[in-house]
Amino acid sequence: LIADVPEQLVISIDAMGGDHGVSVVIPAVGRAANALKGRGVRFLLHGDEAQLKALLASAPTAAPRTTIRHTDKMISMDAKPAEAVRRGKGSSMWNAIEAVKNGEAIAAVSAGNTGALMGQSMLILKKAEGVERPALAASLPSRVGPVAMLDLGADIAATAEQLVEFAIMGQAFARVVNGVANPRVALLNIGSEELKGHESIREAARLIRASNLQMDFRGYVEADKIGFGDIDVVVTDGFTGNVALKTAEGIAKMMSDMLKEAFKSGPLSILGYLLAMSALKKFRAKLDPRKGNGAVFLGLNGVVVKSHGGTDALGFEQAISVAASMGESHFRTEVEDNLKRLAASVAVAASVAAVKEETAK
Amino acid sequence: LIADVPEQLVISIDAMGGDHGVSVVIPAVGRAANALKGRGVRFLLHGDEAQLKALLASAPTAAPRTTIRHTDKMISMDAKPAEAVRRGKGSSMWNAIEAVKNGEAIAAVSAGNTGALMGQSMLILKKAEGVERPALAASLPSRVGPVAMLDLGADIAATAEQLVEFAIMGQAFARVVNGVANPRVALLNIGSEELKGHESIREAARLIRASNLQMDFRGYVEADKIGFGDIDVVVTDGFTGNVALKTAEGIAKMMSDMLKEAFKSGPLSILGYLLAMSALKKFRAKLDPRKGNGAVFLGLNGVVVKSHGGTDALGFEQAISVAASMGESHFRTEVEDNLKRLAASVAVAASVAAVKEETAK
Repeated sequence: LIADVPEQLVISIDAMGGDHGVSVVIPAVGRAANALKGRGVRFLLHGDEAQLKALLASAPTAAPRTTIRHTDKMISMDAKPAEAVRRGKGSSMWNAIEAVKNGEAIAAVSAGNTGALMGQSMLILKKAEGVERPALAASLPSRVGPVAMLDLGADIAATAEQLVEFAIMGQAFARVVNGVANPRVALLNIGSEELKGHESIREAARLIRASNLQMDFRGYVEADKIGFGDIDVVVTDGFTGNVALKTAEGIAKMMSDMLKEAFKSGPLSILGYLLAMSALKKFRAKLDPRKGNGAVFLGLNGVVVKSHGGTDALGFEQAISVAASMGESHFRTEVEDNLKRLAASVAVAASVAAVKEETAK
Repeated sequence: LIADVPEQLVISIDAMGGDHGVSVVIPAVGRAANALKGRGVRFLLHGDEAQLKALLASAPTAAPRTTIRHTDKMISMDAKPAEAVRRGKGSSMWNAIEAVKNGEAIAAVSAGNTGALMGQSMLILKKAEGVERPALAASLPSRVGPVAMLDLGADIAATAEQLVEFAIMGQAFARVVNGVANPRVALLNIGSEELKGHESIREAARLIRASNLQMDFRGYVEADKIGFGDIDVVVTDGFTGNVALKTAEGIAKMMSDMLKEAFKSGPLSILGYLLAMSALKKFRAKLDPRKGNGAVFLGLNGVVVKSHGGTDALGFEQAISVAASMGESHFRTEVEDNLKRLAASVAVAASVAAVKEETAK
């Protein structure tokens, strides 16, 4: 069995990124070292050596599995992405990504500035062959389990062809990260049949149906039905995906806050809270945003995982776990195979159309 | 004081629309008759006379304020909008709208098929002068009070100029329907400065800033901050608005359902629920979607209010109340004045540009 475990499950980590930097990263690495030690995990930490060494001393599981690569350069959370790309070389974020390019690690994780991370990843790793536009994918909570969604903001728009690419990458993501054997894929859309959204969405549906992709494609899904449990992958453009994600986060936060206030509003409700506490903890655990932490920047020559900037050790551990699952998987082969199938069916459709046109003359 | 109350606050109602038709409409009219009798409200009900008469007999406040207009034609909830527009003449929905056009009522309300209602309203009432694209507006709950949002799906896209129109109409809507004296208006957008969304959104912001609109314009708002209470009007295109609205509805419903399950999960949590019940009822009341019921189709020569199809009497009463507020208000004058200011500042900008170009030669 040991032979099946990859000898080199190395995760490259930007230890300085995020709102809390090393104080979250090191405890997270400690947790991940425990959780993933059976898979032979190792860590490559990029950042301030003195700080990292001091903290690692109190993480006995992580320390023997960790190599530190010193740099005193880091990308600030409010850096302008273009600037961070131009002048980012040698920063902890840059070095974390470069280790993936050099084959030293199978995936990189950072809680740093999203725009900077995407820009640097594109520059260093480049787009994978056959991919026109990379996309940011993550998992949202639903009644029955995580639902993958993409694009969450790698770009602001998407053509029909790019939406089909997203569907292919999202399907592989759901399989690898959420363990769904045969993911059901749908395009996010609005309203009734006749009012249906943008032409690009309808064209994407036609393309998928006309192709010989190995995909359980379920047509359209409306935003209020994402959490119903009959769809595993929701495909949309980056602007819409980002708005949907942020709306969901905002409403969930607002309701949690209001619920807390309600329980604090008097002695009876406090007592009620205490009695219902164990059930309420389970409720909260199901919706815990840390469990869905770790957005993956799909479509590059290498895996880059973006952790939420404000998350804690549990959340960052989850991002590391996503990176491990992605890095160990056949994600790239699967996506490449399906992109080839797509290209082939587009070519067939084009030649059929050409023959028809010829015949019609 | 009596002289200030309009003598003819007549609301025209499609009594057959929605999932529950007359069984919700008549109790709602009864409630609204009580609530609005000080404002001299009257109702014009369109639908099956026999059914309506029978139910009105048990609504003593409403009956003397109500006139029934019989029709046995109605638009089904799953009607194709285009079909409903072509063949809708004489239906309860059509007649409800036509009464506004004829000056018999100051506003129409229907819980029927959204696409059909928008199509028929456009055809019968026509666009108001100076308005390029009508929009669907409604109020969402937030921590501090309702937040107006538009477009929620009257169309799928919007140019920069149309977004500015939406901002103008949304501002007037927030004043009239939500009672906000000086609404703070923002454009829905995503991400950090450099990744900011579509060019149309940035152009709309430039247009508003360059105009002499009387508007408290606050720039961009991200979807997770809609409910923070520092924005009263959120402006976006119909596709994005519809996705955001539906996402919010979906998450709120999911969390409510999961919370109910948590409280039912054992005797202790049931007891806890009972103790905290009064606080939890207040929590639920704040988020009650019925309180935000009544989306207004803005930008036509007349007020049309769309009630949620599945709402109950309390929700439909709220839609009637929105119709009354809109009908009694100076909404149209205010919007027209601001549209004129916009046109004037656009003209000034154009002539300044022309002079500059001339000077540069």
